Amino acid sequence: MSEVKDKTSLARATAGALNKLSTQQKNEALLVMAEALVQHRDELIAANDDDLQRGRTNGTSESLLDRLKLTEARIEGIAEGLRQIAALPDPVGDTLEVLDRPNGLHIEKIRVPLGVIGIIYEARPNVTVDAAGLCLKTGNPVVLRGGSAALSSNRKLAEILHEALDTTAIPRNALQIIEDADRASVDEMLKLNGLIDVIIPRGGRSLIQTVVQNATVPVIETGAGVCHTYLDASADPAMAEQIALNAKVQRPSVCNSMETLLVHEDFASAHLARLAERFREAGVELRGCDRTRELAPFALQVTKEDYATEYNDYILNVKVVGGLDEALEHIARFGTMHSECIITEDEANAARFLQEVDAAAVYHNASTRFTDGFEFGFGAEIGISTQKLHARGPMGLPALTSVKYIVRGGGQIRE
Amino acid sequence: MSEVKDKTSLARATAGALNKLSTQQKNEALLVMAEALVQHRDELIAANDDDLQRGRTNGTSESLLDRLKLTEARIEGIAEGLRQIAALPDPVGDTLEVLDRPNGLHIEKIRVPLGVIGIIYEARPNVTVDAAGLCLKTGNPVVLRGGSAALSSNRKLAEILHEALDTTAIPRNALQIIEDADRASVDEMLKLNGLIDVIIPRGGRSLIQTVVQNATVPVIETGAGVCHTYLDASADPAMAEQIALNAKVQRPSVCNSMETLLVHEDFASAHLARLAERFREAGVELRGCDRTRELAPFALQVTKEDYATEYNDYILNVKVVGGLDEALEHIARFGTMHSECIITEDEANAARFLQEVDAAAVYHNASTRFTDGFEFGFGAEIGISTQKLHARGPMGLPALTSVKYIVRGGGQIRE
Repeated sequence: MSEVKDKTSLARATAGALNKLSTQQKNEALLVMAEALVQHRDELIAANDDDLQRGRTNGTSESLLDRLKLTEARIEGIAEGLRQIAALPDPVGDTLEVLDRPNGLHIEKIRVPLGVIGIIYEARPNVTVDAAGLCLKTGNPVVLRGGSAALSSNRKLAEILHEALDTTAIPRNALQIIEDADRASVDEMLKLNGLIDVIIPRGGRSLIQTVVQNATVPVIETGAGVCHTYLDASADPAMAEQIALNAKVQRPSVCNSMETLLVHEDFASAHLARLAERFREAGVELRGCDRTRELAPFALQVTKEDYATEYNDYILNVKVVGGLDEALEHIARFGTMHSECIITEDEANAARFLQEVDAAAVYHNASTRFTDGFEFGFGAEIGISTQKLHARGPMGLPALTSVKYIVRGGGQIRE
Repeated sequence: MSEVKDKTSLARATAGALNKLSTQQKNEALLVMAEALVQHRDELIAANDDDLQRGRTNGTSESLLDRLKLTEARIEGIAEGLRQIAALPDPVGDTLEVLDRPNGLHIEKIRVPLGVIGIIYEARPNVTVDAAGLCLKTGNPVVLRGGSAALSSNRKLAEILHEALDTTAIPRNALQIIEDADRASVDEMLKLNGLIDVIIPRGGRSLIQTVVQNATVPVIETGAGVCHTYLDASADPAMAEQIALNAKVQRPSVCNSMETLLVHEDFASAHLARLAERFREAGVELRGCDRTRELAPFALQVTKEDYATEYNDYILNVKVVGGLDEALEHIARFGTMHSECIITEDEANAARFLQEVDAAAVYHNASTRFTDGFEFGFGAEIGISTQKLHARGPMGLPALTSVKYIVRGGGQIRE
């Protein structure tokens, strides 16, 4: 049997036991896991060093090495993440609906774990712990397949966490880490219908597309964000500037940052020159339409491809539009249904935008950067869903559950 | 452009308009559709006759021809289905959650249409109308690809319904029927990511597996039901007999009927001979384990393959088990997570069964035949989900919706 099938079967066999655990047992286990990480931080940093060295030899970029790197502070941060998950309410067992039928059947709809969750991700060891914590808290066995560049770190994490789990009520097999670095191990996971209930990819666009295109197991698509901010004619200029800058430069590398600024022509005439200057000062490369380039001659010419690109960088498209309709059309064409924003003092336009834009999160007069599990008050998130099935937007613990109908009768039969 | 892509694009273009309709506008359209079917029933029956004749020429079985056949009474039943959908509450626009954040952001989670829904099904013209009604009621454009054996009926239905829609607020393009009978048109639908938001297959196991194995668009898996009834040691004999017979013979052709009867050895010793006789009288072929065949010598030898088979017929597997644990193991191994039942007077065993069996619906002392949208009080269903993602069990109107976060601010930016 392959490593993937073998480990996934072992994980699946723990589902029943996990489902029987109390919230307290699960929380205690998460705290033990957090403590173990802190205690074994030196070993962990040593194992991580192996990955970093291998990465340097292979010519890995500094920014990727930085994502891979574990430090004492980062390990403490990862452990703190587990403690925060332990502190969150447990959705499993919640009664969502009670149906009393005329024939006397008593039906309860309750939350249950989702089942075996597969996570496919890149070389970020923090995802290993974070995903394990969220899945185990919700009673789901988890099979983690991280990038080969983090293999040594992930092996050590598995060793530490398994040893920790052995002192808790959670069976060690509920957490599995696939070590097979071959791409075939990903392909195998994607087709394990019956053993894996859902796969969540976490990473860049190409990883996510590989998963979506090849999986026969259900997938929750996450991440890609080509987000827009539309400055309407009546936008408050100070608010518009503040929000637009925040949406772009506060952290350009994340999916909820802005990639394209749409500007009503009246607002543009009065304020775009100044706003473009502010972006330039902040180190943002502007790519604009003709009208934008008249007002901000230093802007490059924008292309159709640019409008469809998630830069995750200090680059911004700027387009002057005739009004709300043109803004809505642009967003419908180029948006990825992630986060979209209108800045306006016109309530009717705000209402239209909020109703008509088809996205996980739609904003009036606030930065798209708030699309985030912590900012929404969910406490933690496994990702941001950009699909419409099962979960949409930031996915907190309830997104890792399913439901079950419990039907109690007294001998009812169907006539 | 292909028919599939062309029609799906046309359907998608209506999503915004559909989303703006009031519940009343949608309900009026459904009633107009119902009326049109009744008015044009003669044309419809004539078109259906073409399909029936073609089917007879091609040697289609009588039972398939019966599923395909439209009569005046059946057309009235289909129209009545639309009227019932019109009478159901509209979930779209419901506020599911309100989050007021410390920074002043006001976040509402509201129900929105799911998007373009693709339905792939077999030669049952009633599904055409039923699926159209459910999808349009929830504001979703729908692309229907029925079996080629019903093509003439479906064409006529499209003509009648499109003409009816032209007198309503629903754009005719929101309802599309794919006429291309080639299997390639199904394959194309399955990969229309970005144009289709979800595909729901309705039909037999092979149709569903084709969709699950080949789709890159998200799928809701429906249908397959290898359902069990477990008669515990303490089961009330009269209730056990009544429910077991009902679960098998009241309508064997449907997914929530029983395929395997599990019997505690003590109950078997006292009652299985009589129960087997009752099944024989009802025309059910029994396939039993060794112990069953001792008690009911007319039973055939059951095989492992039998335990995994959804007969949808007057055939039943019978297995004597040592107790609850063995019953749970058997269900975990051979069940399809659809509907499972325990008959017992022992509350502790009932509680264990209800908690530990991983299925959409778990029953204590009632027939599995109740797993059904109407019986659960949902009023109508688009199918019964046997997956854990998005929807599980009977899918009423809310299963055809997604959510959207609407965020209202006063200039908030992320620090």
